[in-house]
Parts: sequence; C-alpha cells; structure tokens
Amino acid sequence: MDTTSLRINGARLRATLEEMAKIGATPGGGVERLALSDADRRARDLFVTWLKEMGLEIMIDDMGNIFGKKSGRNNDLPPVMSGSHIDSQPKGGRFDGILGVMGTLETLRTIHEAGLDHERPIVIVDWTNEEGSRFAPAMVGSGVWAGRLERDWVYQRTDVHGNKFGVELEGIGYKGKLPAERWPVHAYYEYHIEQGPVLDRLRTTIGVPKGIVCLHWYDIHLEGTANQVGPTPMEGRNDALCAAAEMILKVNALPAKMGGNMVATVGEIHNAPNSRNIIPDRVHFTVDIRSWDDELAIRAWEDVKRDFESIAEARGCPIRIEETWRVQHTPFDENLVKRVLDNARALGYSSHSMVSGAGHDASYMSQVAPTAMIFVPSIGGRSHVEVEDTRWEDCEAGANVLLHCVIQSALEK
Amino acid sequence: MDTTSLRINGARLRATLEEMAKIGATPGGGVERLALSDADRRARDLFVTWLKEMGLEIMIDDMGNIFGKKSGRNNDLPPVMSGSHIDSQPKGGRFDGILGVMGTLETLRTIHEAGLDHERPIVIVDWTNEEGSRFAPAMVGSGVWAGRLERDWVYQRTDVHGNKFGVELEGIGYKGKLPAERWPVHAYYEYHIEQGPVLDRLRTTIGVPKGIVCLHWYDIHLEGTANQVGPTPMEGRNDALCAAAEMILKVNALPAKMGGNMVATVGEIHNAPNSRNIIPDRVHFTVDIRSWDDELAIRAWEDVKRDFESIAEARGCPIRIEETWRVQHTPFDENLVKRVLDNARALGYSSHSMVSGAGHDASYMSQVAPTAMIFVPSIGGRSHVEVEDTRWEDCEAGANVLLHCVIQSALEK
Repeated sequence: MDTTSLRINGARLRATLEEMAKIGATPGGGVERLALSDADRRARDLFVTWLKEMGLEIMIDDMGNIFGKKSGRNNDLPPVMSGSHIDSQPKGGRFDGILGVMGTLETLRTIHEAGLDHERPIVIVDWTNEEGSRFAPAMVGSGVWAGRLERDWVYQRTDVHGNKFGVELEGIGYKGKLPAERWPVHAYYEYHIEQGPVLDRLRTTIGVPKGIVCLHWYDIHLEGTANQVGPTPMEGRNDALCAAAEMILKVNALPAKMGGNMVATVGEIHNAPNSRNIIPDRVHFTVDIRSWDDELAIRAWEDVKRDFESIAEARGCPIRIEETWRVQHTPFDENLVKRVLDNARALGYSSHSMVSGAGHDASYMSQVAPTAMIFVPSIGGRSHVEVEDTRWEDCEAGANVLLHCVIQSALEK
Repeated sequence: MDTTSLRINGARLRATLEEMAKIGATPGGGVERLALSDADRRARDLFVTWLKEMGLEIMIDDMGNIFGKKSGRNNDLPPVMSGSHIDSQPKGGRFDGILGVMGTLETLRTIHEAGLDHERPIVIVDWTNEEGSRFAPAMVGSGVWAGRLERDWVYQRTDVHGNKFGVELEGIGYKGKLPAERWPVHAYYEYHIEQGPVLDRLRTTIGVPKGIVCLHWYDIHLEGTANQVGPTPMEGRNDALCAAAEMILKVNALPAKMGGNMVATVGEIHNAPNSRNIIPDRVHFTVDIRSWDDELAIRAWEDVKRDFESIAEARGCPIRIEETWRVQHTPFDENLVKRVLDNARALGYSSHSMVSGAGHDASYMSQVAPTAMIFVPSIGGRSHVEVEDTRWEDCEAGANVLLHCVIQSALEK
C-alpha cells in the first residue's frame, strides 16, 4: 500500500480537541486539569473510551501512565511509541500536552481506517503529571518509566494541601498493576506546541527540534540591614533589594554579553520585610539559564556569579548561592529528526530546524529510545496561559507529519 | 526655687522602662504591644496605676488617648503637654514610643518629689495607635485629637482579621467618655529615640530636630508578557521585573543625583506570577521619598518619573503610576527647638541639630500647638526591630533635657 497520499482528518482532530477542552474548561477560555485531579480523571476516562472504540489493548502502569497498543504484523518487535500528556497548568491552555495525545489518537484512527498493515505495534501514551505544577517535580510519569526517578519517592510528593501523589493516584482509579518500567521502544515521537514565539514570528508551520537545551537553576539569598527608611541616610545603607536589582539586570544582559544561543531569566523574587518604609533585609531570587551549549551556560554562570559577588560586596549585603539543579542538553536521534524534517518537506509545509527551550517527556524518553519531536506555532508565543492558541490548520499539519513519521517507523522491520 | 541643679532619677527611669518592657516581651529581646491588644491594655493599666500613685487627674477620651494632669498654680492657663505612645510594632523594640511616655512620667515624678511650684498644669499623654501596624494609618490618636482625622472613620478601620478599631478599643476598656477634641496647649514636647544612625555615628547624645521631613508615597504598576522562559528568546521579551529592577536603581541613585538632603527607597515589591520559569508580567513596587525641602522632593519625583516612563517604553512594559500620599514637611516651633538645644548645652550634653526622617504624634501636634522633640541615639540606627537599643545613660540625658524644657514652659505665665 502506498501511504504517500494518506492524510489525517483535520475536522475530526479539531472536534476531539474541542471535546477534550470542555473537561476542566476555565471561564478565560483555557483549561485547568491539574495532575490526578477530578478533571484529569474525567479526561483520562474519555481518552480510554476512545482507545477502546478502536479496539486497542489498554495498559495502565503503577504511575498512572496509560498505554494503548495497536498490534502490528510482528508483535515481538519493539513498538513505535507516540504521545504526550493530558494534565495542564493551573489556568493553562487547550493545546499544551493534549495536542500530542490527540494528534497520536488521530494518527491511529487514520491508520486504522485506512486498514494499513504495519510491521511493528504502535503504542499511544499519556504520561502522568508532566506539568509538575500540582506535584513537583515535572515529568514524573516518563521519569519513573525511564528509570530516572524512584516510584516510591514520587508517591510521597505532596501538593500544597498535603495530599500525597500515591494516594491521589489511587483515588482517581489510575494506579495500575503493571510496574512502571521501561521496555524496548523502536522510536518515540512527541508532537507538541512550540510554547515560544519563534515559529509564529517566522510564519513557519513545522518546528523540528534537534533536542532540548540544558537547564541550570540557581537560588540567590541576600542579606541587608532593615531600618526605617526616613531616618536612615543613603550612605551606609545595606539595601538587599537594590543589590538584587543590580543582579537581575546582570542576568538579563548575560546572553548578549556571552554571545551564542542562550536565555537567562529571573522569574521569582521574595523580598522581606516587604514594607514600604523599611529597608529590605532579606531577598531571595532565582536564576534560570538555558542553552544548547552546556559549556557556554557554565561559563555564563561563572561570569555572572563573579558579578553577584562584587555587587554583594559593594552593597554590604552578604550573599548565599545555591546551585539548585543542572540538566545537560538532550540531543534527539539524528535519523528521526531528519525524518521529521523530510516529512514536513514532502508534505509541502514550511519548516525550521531549532531547539526546544522547554523540557518534555521526550527528555526522559530520549535516554531510553531514539526520539524526536514535532512543533507547531504558538500564536504570539503564549503558553501556560488561558489565551494559549494554535491555528487549526497548523494542528492538522503537525498531525500529518506525525502520521507519516509513525507509519515509516512502524513499517521498519 | 532654683531648678538648675534638678535632675531626674536615672535608676528609677531604667527600672520603669524595664518593668514596661516585660509587657509583651518577645523571646528576641523586644516587645510586641500592638495597638488595642491585650498587651496594650496591660501596659495602659500599669501606666494609669503609676499616674494615680502621683495623684494626677486622669482623663481618657473616646480615642483611648490617656491624659494625666498635674495641677499648676493657675489651672485656667493652657497646660504644657508631653508624651508619646505605648503601642509598638510587631516584634518591635523596648524604646520606640514608650521612652517618651516613661521619660515624661519620670519628669513628673522628679517635679513632684522636688515639690516644685509651677504656674501651668502639666499633662502627660499616651496617644493611641501611633504605629499603625495593626490598624492603618498611623498616629490616629493624635490625628483625631488634633482635628485632622475623623473619629468614626478610624473606628471602622480593621486589622488583618477583620476586627474593627472601635470595637477593639471598647474591648480593652479604654473608650473614654471625653470627646477626642483639641484643647489649647501652651507647649508640646515629645521625647523619642532617633530611629536612625546619625547620632550614633556622630557619638552625640541629644538630637534636636527642627521638624519632620516631607513624605511622598508612590505606587508603580508594570505590565509585561508572561511566557515560558525556555522557548522565549531574549529579544522581544517584555520582562516587567527587569523594568522594575532598572527603576529601583534609579530611585536609589536619586538623592545623589538631585543633591540636597533626601532619602528615596523602594521597600516593597510584588512580582507575578513569581514562578522561576515564567517571565514576570505584573510587578507592583512602592517609592518613598523624604526631604526637608518639599520642592526638591517634587523635582526629584518628576525626574525619576520621566526615567520610569522611558524605561517602561524601552522594555515594552506599560506603566501605571499612583501618587498615593503626600505630606509636606513639618517645621517645629523655633523657640521650643532653641530651648531644647539650650538645655542640652546647659546640661553639658553634646547635641546635633537635625531633621526627623520619621513621622511622630508631634507631626499632628505641631499643627495645633508650639511643638519640639528631643532625640537620643539608636545604637546602629536600628529601630522597629527586637534588637532596637539605646544606652541607659542616653535615656537619662534625654529625660533631663525634657525635665528642664517642661519646667521652663510650665513656669511661663
């Protein structure tokens, strides 16, 4: 069978996404489906219903990861796997995560309808708690499955109300009997919105990430001297917020200073006593540095750390630095990345080779199987917000790229 | 009677202050006597006991201000008034406010013991809720009494638990029948710790403020664009926290830029969504500008406002500015200020002419009566903290200056 002219059903994909977006819908037009919440459960139930309609073999592991398997000619061969996640950020959008799961569902429906005879089984997956916004850290479903996180440690993670992950997982009825343990996978694809503005600015339809950038997190703590602002002259003040302000601007200027592809951000700041007439004496802020080049990120950090230390010295504000978390950059599989690019071209879509600035379940998967991702544009680069949006035409195009990648991998002997 | 050699009893003053410091004592060596709390009530009870021991006429008005009147030869003449406040900051110090009340008590005890025959009555006062930390705003007792605030409006002020000022005042049994309304006062003195580092740095005992600086409060609101930090390149970002950081440094540099005597401070900042991997899109911070020169403060504000607007423009972060509160500088009575200075010299104490950077009940009092203040050093300039401290020798010296000022005013016909 020549599959060249096979296409997914764009109208059906849209209807499926719209149906899903009703679950946990927010007044602002987004969705809120926090991991292991009732909305997560209802979305999982609907997802499983759809898998059953297609006659897939359903497997749920003890991390709540849901797998749906479509048999191939030779079920002894490692399967092709594709998917993403159903959970969302608080007041998140209608595309982050769910597009990859519904895009894979549409791919399977298309293959199923066409009666395509494929060599390898194809597995669709919903990974539990990718977002990490209710239970930190993120990507625990794929992390445990890939053998990079401990299941029982994850079970003990709590949300802000003290509810435990393990108890909540059982509570929504998705703690399966199957151990969450990796099995051989021939190829893993993850279809996702870009979550950044690059494709939208370039007016390009398909983003082809060669991998995921490195991620460095730091925590900075400054001490000042709290005094009433009125009677305390400027000279001799130890104002921890002023020291932090200088440091924030150094972080912001770092990518331009270092050259190369990099982002550096201060997203979080805590100021104490945070009273308008008292000089701040305790400031904590975070630094997030990401780059495709791990060495460049390290050099940038060493550079800005020296700046921090001299600012702290000059302002008389003792500094304490925590090097909180470092993840190296993750290169995807070169052959699969090329396949994504080739299929985009063959389908006549504009495409752009890039890197992913955000982490995905594909990060853990690339450590256990050949992996690639497919991006489509986020309008205005907005994501993790209710106004997150992607054109339906782009959703359809990305799913067509996924369809052909999955078919080609599934035909391989 | 020649009063030149009259001195207060330093040991008794210290014992009185130490006794008071037990009420609301904190583990960190400070006190917590929030306005209209049970600790405030117990301190008031002890204060009233001491006033009764001396046979003073006690008056409590419907703002809870406590007055103790020692008769003079001619009780038809407006009295000399002296005092401050018993309430404290949360985790405040053992001297702020209470030193002025206990210093006046010691002055009256000294005059009483000496059997001094004075022309005018002398009134000691404890003003209700000077701090404003439980019920905002500050200085409401003197404010209502001076006719600058509405009593019933103050009654409706609530603390963080929703308790109303009026109800709490009644609850501690200090809502008197006397209306809180100004009556003629011949001279008002307020003895207080400096709450700044100036006297301590100069190793000088008595500070003589010529008045209180002006106070301008502004609230700045910035809008950015929240996006995931990883996938969002540096160019095109609208980072509201970076814009705020630039503005904070402009505020900090303002006094040096403008010349003249001025302080400018950002004490409070709120950042949203305040997540380490999201670009900040809503930042609110405060600006506090104080100077003896109202015009200079206004010019400084206009200058920094222009900086704010161009930073907001350059960063693509729309700005909204509230001009929240402006109080003009308050000059004290020249004759009384000179009297404080003369008495410090006559007593052989080092003294320094200065301004008060903080507001006091003396601000409202100076609008209805000739007013002056007496400052003593705060060690390290620390105030509104548990480690707030002043040497006992300095407490004694300040009380001796107060004693002679009060006597001289009370002898005037």
